[in-house]
Amino acid sequence: MEFKCLKTSDNARLSLLWLKDEIELPAFMPVGTQGIVKALLPDTLIDIGYKLMLSNTYHLYLRPGVEIIEAFGGLHKFTNFKGSILTDSGGFQVFSLSDLRKVTQEGVVFKSHIDGSYHLFTPEKVLDIQFRFKSDIAMVLDECPAYSLDKSFVEKSLNITLNWAKRSSVIKRPPHTAVFGIVQGGVFEDLRKKSALEIAGMDFDGIAIGGLSVGESTQEMYDTVASVMQYLPEDKPRYAMGVGRPEDIVRLVGFGVDMFDCVMPTRNARNGYLFTDFGNINIKNAAYAKDESPIDENCDCYTCKNYSRAFLRHLYKSKELSFYTLATIHNLSYYYNLMQRIGQAIKNNSFAEFSKSFLDKRKYGYS
Amino acid sequence: MEFKCLKTSDNARLSLLWLKDEIELPAFMPVGTQGIVKALLPDTLIDIGYKLMLSNTYHLYLRPGVEIIEAFGGLHKFTNFKGSILTDSGGFQVFSLSDLRKVTQEGVVFKSHIDGSYHLFTPEKVLDIQFRFKSDIAMVLDECPAYSLDKSFVEKSLNITLNWAKRSSVIKRPPHTAVFGIVQGGVFEDLRKKSALEIAGMDFDGIAIGGLSVGESTQEMYDTVASVMQYLPEDKPRYAMGVGRPEDIVRLVGFGVDMFDCVMPTRNARNGYLFTDFGNINIKNAAYAKDESPIDENCDCYTCKNYSRAFLRHLYKSKELSFYTLATIHNLSYYYNLMQRIGQAIKNNSFAEFSKSFLDKRKYGYS
Repeated sequence: MEFKCLKTSDNARLSLLWLKDEIELPAFMPVGTQGIVKALLPDTLIDIGYKLMLSNTYHLYLRPGVEIIEAFGGLHKFTNFKGSILTDSGGFQVFSLSDLRKVTQEGVVFKSHIDGSYHLFTPEKVLDIQFRFKSDIAMVLDECPAYSLDKSFVEKSLNITLNWAKRSSVIKRPPHTAVFGIVQGGVFEDLRKKSALEIAGMDFDGIAIGGLSVGESTQEMYDTVASVMQYLPEDKPRYAMGVGRPEDIVRLVGFGVDMFDCVMPTRNARNGYLFTDFGNINIKNAAYAKDESPIDENCDCYTCKNYSRAFLRHLYKSKELSFYTLATIHNLSYYYNLMQRIGQAIKNNSFAEFSKSFLDKRKYGYS
Repeated sequence: MEFKCLKTSDNARLSLLWLKDEIELPAFMPVGTQGIVKALLPDTLIDIGYKLMLSNTYHLYLRPGVEIIEAFGGLHKFTNFKGSILTDSGGFQVFSLSDLRKVTQEGVVFKSHIDGSYHLFTPEKVLDIQFRFKSDIAMVLDECPAYSLDKSFVEKSLNITLNWAKRSSVIKRPPHTAVFGIVQGGVFEDLRKKSALEIAGMDFDGIAIGGLSVGESTQEMYDTVASVMQYLPEDKPRYAMGVGRPEDIVRLVGFGVDMFDCVMPTRNARNGYLFTDFGNINIKNAAYAKDESPIDENCDCYTCKNYSRAFLRHLYKSKELSFYTLATIHNLSYYYNLMQRIGQAIKNNSFAEFSKSFLDKRKYGYS
């Protein structure tokens, strides 16, 4: 992996990341939990413009299992996805999906949500799994505590995460896989500072900020990210995990974040919520029953070029599977185009103007 | 609509049907109940090679309703499907989906399976609906009695269907819509003969055989179709409604049938049953967990060119929506290719040999 920051505009950074492909940052990564984005063929993701997808180590480790993916020669060959793949470490899923887990300094024992079997994840094991997946970017194991104002609880958790990070940073990595460390520390500025400085001092290829969008207010999230930024090195990509809404992405780019992932565009699509600059459309609304216009007149995605709101509403009401595909194409195209517009604004040295205009539109748009 | 039979081989007919496009018969029509084939984008259906889809008047009449489809300028414009559309009359759905109905000489009153509202379908009304849909082929209203050995019950039902057919045959039809009559009569050869002769004597553009695959044995179904064929005119297309398995299609083409529709390839796909010449694959089977080969080595569909059985099994087990798309692409490609091979065999004047070889393979292949 190589990374180069080309230009900044009002703290927003335009960069290039070289994995399998050259990827322009800031970038949004669609979530393909099982090695595929829900309701979308891998080639369609590429057609929209995406070159980097996020997949989940926890899910793929449990099913189909590392042996099968390794036998195929890695996740790219197993899934036939032609872009690059970042895998998370499984940390977040262990803490959100497993109903039983025990954290020690060694690692975390958890119960599979699929068949109830018990498994141990250690920092060493989750990296080994991701190396065998031949992930382009692997994430270190971290503990993701729930949102809490109990500082000693968050600090204890952070210390385990830092111990795990240290062990992860010294593991020899194969040439095809970059490894990112993760900053934790909840909403406590001093814990975030400690975490950021320690992670910044370790040998990682990029730095993620975890523990966001876990229950804190939007303002707390913005403050946390803004405060962490000052401690991070300029020469490594910065990734805000699990963020977020279009307005969150624009705000965090303004603090210097380069990479994002979130289930929001894909999950909302499946629930009939479709993104536009003027707010989100709920396709269920009776107002769209006879509406011959596309979701968004300004959108040039396949769905908007070919289908009316009325037909999409008919498909949604009829629970037709193709609705999920067409809605996902639109929402992921919206996010892709947003990142393109952000990049263009930085190139034009006008990110602050873009940001203000965009946030105003989203705020005052309908619904 | 124009129809021309070009060639026969052992009673199998190679023909051309001109609707929006020139369509070679024998042809299979995928079922797009709500105006779209489940899990498949309309353009993908065209890419596979299909130029003719079946949609359901009953469903589209109830939702989104005739007014909306008419306001868009018809079903093609509402759905943006670029091929031709045959709509069934709703008769079959009234008798299979509605839990309350009352048949009179006038028509049938039924209760919507969606909201419990009551509706009247008459022969005149269902044709008017289909004309407003701008269907390329409209079907007359018929009564579809359940499989029964009570001849007087079937005869009484047939007489209503023939009365409705007569009224349908004299309705002025718009230039863009052809109308097909439907032969009923259960498994009673004399009733089928009476029905076939009367329908053949009416002014229809094509003739369908209904009441198949409703509980009779395969042999009864074959005998019924074979017996009806002798009474049908040579110069009109013949359509076996709701048929069927690949082997049924090959057998019925051998009796002189030109058109088919069935939910089997699409429904089976969604349940993990994938067609090959050597029988059907159940993708759930553990045997495929590490299988790097495609569904069918001889298939050139998008799914077989890009995806392994192991990955497809992973998607199926993970309930990933894209499984349904990829499986549907394969099964509909299998059916499309089957019809191409049938056409080629007729051109080569070798339909009987093709039929024997095909039926042997399907019979002795693994299931």
